[in-house]
Amino acid sequence: MKKINHYMHLAIEQARIAESCNEVPIGAVLIDPEGNIKQSSHNLVIGNSDPTAHAELNVIRRECRSLKNERLNGYSLFVTLEPCPMCATAISFARISKIVYGASDRKSGGIEVGPKIFTHSQNHHKPEIVKGINQDICSHLLKNFFKLRR
Amino acid sequence: MKKINHYMHLAIEQARIAESCNEVPIGAVLIDPEGNIKQSSHNLVIGNSDPTAHAELNVIRRECRSLKNERLNGYSLFVTLEPCPMCATAISFARISKIVYGASDRKSGGIEVGPKIFTHSQNHHKPEIVKGINQDICSHLLKNFFKLRR
Repeated sequence: MKKINHYMHLAIEQARIAESCNEVPIGAVLIDPEGNIKQSSHNLVIGNSDPTAHAELNVIRRECRSLKNERLNGYSLFVTLEPCPMCATAISFARISKIVYGASDRKSGGIEVGPKIFTHSQNHHKPEIVKGINQDICSHLLKNFFKLRR
Repeated sequence: MKKINHYMHLAIEQARIAESCNEVPIGAVLIDPEGNIKQSSHNLVIGNSDPTAHAELNVIRRECRSLKNERLNGYSLFVTLEPCPMCATAISFARISKIVYGASDRKSGGIEVGPKIFTHSQNHHKPEIVKGINQDICSHLLKNFFKLRR
């Protein structure tokens, strides 16, 4: 549990960096099977002019490129918000073993609501899922970001 | 209809290039609002060691980077196979106006089956969808590819 909180705090730090760059404050950290922190990133949609540059996709793509392998068996992905359907599907393609996330996302999530990516026969790999870790901090960051911009 | 067939043939050409590189034979072409061919690509998952390097994501990322804009309003995307949930969601994020695809994908599709990405309130943009264009050629390419590798 101590380690889970440590990794999630690193993801929250990434979300805060996103906020300071005017990106939606979502952060992610990718952990290898031995528990080493391999990649961290945040939302970069505006900065990179890339609608797919979500924190999750950024860490997955970087680590795969670095390993020269399109699969990340045994890896864990920590992210501040419930992944969207795009990211949930990419997590499945990469064969990531475990996702840990903070806040749930009723509006645009892809796991608990709507497309529920991991529940269909069209999904070919389902990771272990842990949710609700530091959810208050994670959702407060997002609420505050959008409140200031409305 | 003549133009639709022309664009789809270019996507099929891309799928054939993929096959010759031992990538799953799926190709895509991105057309701007004036009908100009702006990007074409094919599956590059193995070659790029990137589980997200589907034909659709490749053309979207390239065009967004080139325009320095994360949205592609008015664009049409032609692809040989029904997009997966990852690509369908990215198409929605990019605000692409129209998708035209060849074969349906009962096994891993994200539009007609399973997560049915565009049918939930968590989806915030639904493009016009045209399907079944040159579906026999598109699905034959895939069937043949997997048959030879089994």
